[in-house]
Amino acid sequence: MSDTAVAGRRGRSGGGAARRAERTAVHIDKAPAITRAIPNFELLSEDVLATIEANAETVLEEIGVNFVNNPAALDRWREAGADVQGERVHIPRGLARRLCETAPSSFIQHARNPANSVEIGGKGLVLAPVYGPPFVRDAEGGRRYATMEDFRTFVKLGHMSKWLHHSGGTVCEPTDVPVNKRHLDMIHAHMTLTDKPFMGSVTEPSRAQDSVDMCKILFGEEFATTNTVMTSLININSPLTFDDTMMGALEVYAANMQATIISPFIVGGAMAPVSVMGTLTQVLAEVLAGIAYAQLVRPGAPVIFGAFVTSIDMNSGAPTFGTPEASQILYGAGQLARRMNLPFRSGGGLCGSKLPDAQAAYETANTLNAALLGGVNFMLHACGWLEGGLVSSFEKFVMDADQLGTLHKMAAGVAADENAQGMDAIREVGPGGHYLGCAHTQANFKTAFWKSDLLDYKPFETWDEEGARDTQTLASARVAKLLEQYRAPDLDPAIAEALAAFVAGRKAAMPDAFM
Amino acid sequence: MSDTAVAGRRGRSGGGAARRAERTAVHIDKAPAITRAIPNFELLSEDVLATIEANAETVLEEIGVNFVNNPAALDRWREAGADVQGERVHIPRGLARRLCETAPSSFIQHARNPANSVEIGGKGLVLAPVYGPPFVRDAEGGRRYATMEDFRTFVKLGHMSKWLHHSGGTVCEPTDVPVNKRHLDMIHAHMTLTDKPFMGSVTEPSRAQDSVDMCKILFGEEFATTNTVMTSLININSPLTFDDTMMGALEVYAANMQATIISPFIVGGAMAPVSVMGTLTQVLAEVLAGIAYAQLVRPGAPVIFGAFVTSIDMNSGAPTFGTPEASQILYGAGQLARRMNLPFRSGGGLCGSKLPDAQAAYETANTLNAALLGGVNFMLHACGWLEGGLVSSFEKFVMDADQLGTLHKMAAGVAADENAQGMDAIREVGPGGHYLGCAHTQANFKTAFWKSDLLDYKPFETWDEEGARDTQTLASARVAKLLEQYRAPDLDPAIAEALAAFVAGRKAAMPDAFM
Repeated sequence: MSDTAVAGRRGRSGGGAARRAERTAVHIDKAPAITRAIPNFELLSEDVLATIEANAETVLEEIGVNFVNNPAALDRWREAGADVQGERVHIPRGLARRLCETAPSSFIQHARNPANSVEIGGKGLVLAPVYGPPFVRDAEGGRRYATMEDFRTFVKLGHMSKWLHHSGGTVCEPTDVPVNKRHLDMIHAHMTLTDKPFMGSVTEPSRAQDSVDMCKILFGEEFATTNTVMTSLININSPLTFDDTMMGALEVYAANMQATIISPFIVGGAMAPVSVMGTLTQVLAEVLAGIAYAQLVRPGAPVIFGAFVTSIDMNSGAPTFGTPEASQILYGAGQLARRMNLPFRSGGGLCGSKLPDAQAAYETANTLNAALLGGVNFMLHACGWLEGGLVSSFEKFVMDADQLGTLHKMAAGVAADENAQGMDAIREVGPGGHYLGCAHTQANFKTAFWKSDLLDYKPFETWDEEGARDTQTLASARVAKLLEQYRAPDLDPAIAEALAAFVAGRKAAMPDAFM
Repeated sequence: MSDTAVAGRRGRSGGGAARRAERTAVHIDKAPAITRAIPNFELLSEDVLATIEANAETVLEEIGVNFVNNPAALDRWREAGADVQGERVHIPRGLARRLCETAPSSFIQHARNPANSVEIGGKGLVLAPVYGPPFVRDAEGGRRYATMEDFRTFVKLGHMSKWLHHSGGTVCEPTDVPVNKRHLDMIHAHMTLTDKPFMGSVTEPSRAQDSVDMCKILFGEEFATTNTVMTSLININSPLTFDDTMMGALEVYAANMQATIISPFIVGGAMAPVSVMGTLTQVLAEVLAGIAYAQLVRPGAPVIFGAFVTSIDMNSGAPTFGTPEASQILYGAGQLARRMNLPFRSGGGLCGSKLPDAQAAYETANTLNAALLGGVNFMLHACGWLEGGLVSSFEKFVMDADQLGTLHKMAAGVAADENAQGMDAIREVGPGGHYLGCAHTQANFKTAFWKSDLLDYKPFETWDEEGARDTQTLASARVAKLLEQYRAPDLDPAIAEALAAFVAGRKAAMPDAFM
């Protein structure tokens, strides 16, 4: 189920260091892509889905959506046949859905290491880490503002994770780098510290352009503009509002054939109706408008139907995660995406807890299970997310990453060939016997069960003697071990130099800005 | 979604105490039965299920099952048409399945409080607590042998749990009471400290008979022998072995129309083939033989298709929980049970962790989610299970019990009426608006979201000031609060006296035995 590669060594190691590296060379296991061999869970009936679709068309036509500070977008909509009143775009029934038809049902996002390229859509499930937190936490240092050094550490952990396909984007927000420059360091880290695919910057159209320009260096100009080499996150300002920053970034990416996730960002009851069906109606209306707009910019631009929806604690107003309502919306949104034949993004290791404790794990596992069975194709926040997305946790990163292995195994389905039927084993062992030593067990035990790299299965006495460690403590040790084993993948020195020069040049061209 | 009852007060309270009790009277919320309004997740295809069924018939006919030390059982099988060789019973193809047809597809288990009676089968899901651990753990005292006082505490916590339908059986093993007498104290506790339904003793046929006799006192002889008032756990000695202790208890219960769970107890790779399909084949063969036997004892006796199957850590030999293989087997077993039109038991808050930490919660949530979507009708171990079933944890009991609320909400499905569609809300709020104050939100927010009674959603600063408590710490506080609020439900003093006299009489009639 996995192939193995020896981690590349840093090019600048001298002879002695090289020999030491040789002796300690670490095999990095990489699991292949996930292709679901199992059904999806279809929560909502055909009737309910059809009602949501009809209601979403009503929302688009009757209420409309706002494209803010974006005359070019209004022009595009007008030309396409929408009724534009000020910044309000009323989209006639059926128009948005027709425009969405040029979007591909799946696409390849290329990585600089072709073995790490991913197909997004269909029966696939691509796993990417946490995105966006301004804080980090570890057991030793507690909670603190994230730095660029933390960012690099998360990229390294993602590179070392067997089950993670994707390096993600803003794995944490490096608050020690000026706001207008940090995207350069972040993209640079994803390009140099790992050879998995990654996401581009969306916080300004110019930063999206920087991301595209850096990809031209990494992949070559020809390749980078005719292939998808980034998937970037375009959040919609729910309800029903498309701001110029996000749309500006979308325009850059779509024009360059780069993929975007068109994702309503909804705290249920605050940014959408308090009911599941009402929220799904708004999600669908927003996604229809957003994806249609991407297709107006460039027909055929790769897009993902996104749905980031949490429930809310009505006492405190805090968003809540891993709740039944969030799962219901995930299942329903997945069904709506499949009916549009589009890749679907949702889920992740979402939780509200401040610590990587039982609350975090209940909430996370509830979401991961729903995402697997709900047909998610691209799972952002698959590992490392803590405290409602305010914190990237080092320990939770490796805890969740370990659990992602269970999704790989579940998705593979159940083998049904003669060996899997095991009739010879039942005959050999018979009533009252024991299977551990039988031929069938000996032949199959190595691949029969998913194996955790983290969880503790030792007898109580052994565990107690070893310090009665809880999951967080085991995870701290695993973080340290992975970082010790980490080696950067090889990169053509000419490309490395050109990337560094690009970053230095862009930084020199701008004064620092911290807002 | 829930009705509310004022907890009864202890009869012996004097006037002042009664007034104090009045002032502090606690409302015990009780959620109604779960009836799934959602589909089941059908993991295996029709073809695979048919192959498993054919293979199970081959196992029964060709290999057979052992009924140990039980000449009467062998006679019953011989009369039914089986080929009996020594203690080995070869069951001709189709015979066991035909015998199972007299078992009801669902049944009512009555509680002494009729409001707490449960229907087991169909679309229902009945939740019962942990069963069997010899140890208990709490944050303050750590891990220690369980006592009868611990047992009573768990029964009280179960009584106070809004989401738990059933008081269970051996919520922990009271090791301070002689082995041959502890069943009397356990049944007595379930009968007096709660008015939810419960399980009978299975560790000897005579103890099953004591359970039946105590039910005659509690429910009246006529009612107790013509209605099902206990559901008890009959484990099969996998592979393919039915011992005389368990079968003796089954015979007592079936003869008295009391329900039994016929449950293979399997550590995969040790007591069944190392493959999912091989394990399912053996599970089905064992359940077919066990349920057929119950129907031979008394046609129409209520039974449950059980499947307790864990995976195994092939390094240590330890059973593992919450793994993909365990979920696959649960899903498949549920499908097999539905094809027999029988109630299904599996799942629970299963985990291998020694602490109620993140490992415990990941594993537990994985199992609870599979049990919900896999169509489980009776979920034993729904809360409180720790360390592979060696430990009943007070904190995990209330942690899991809180999560059970998510199953209630998920099972209810998604409302689709006009109010749920929320179109008026979307019209009222419009692009860029806010839903918190709108009429639809005000009308629906109280019931829109599942509400945790345990998890922390406070802002970081508040949480930090309050001691930065993790889930276990919050759970310790909740255990203390529930026990403080606990009041025993009223019981007719004449019945209470008769039960106490029965227990005392039976204890006096036997010398203590500790093995």
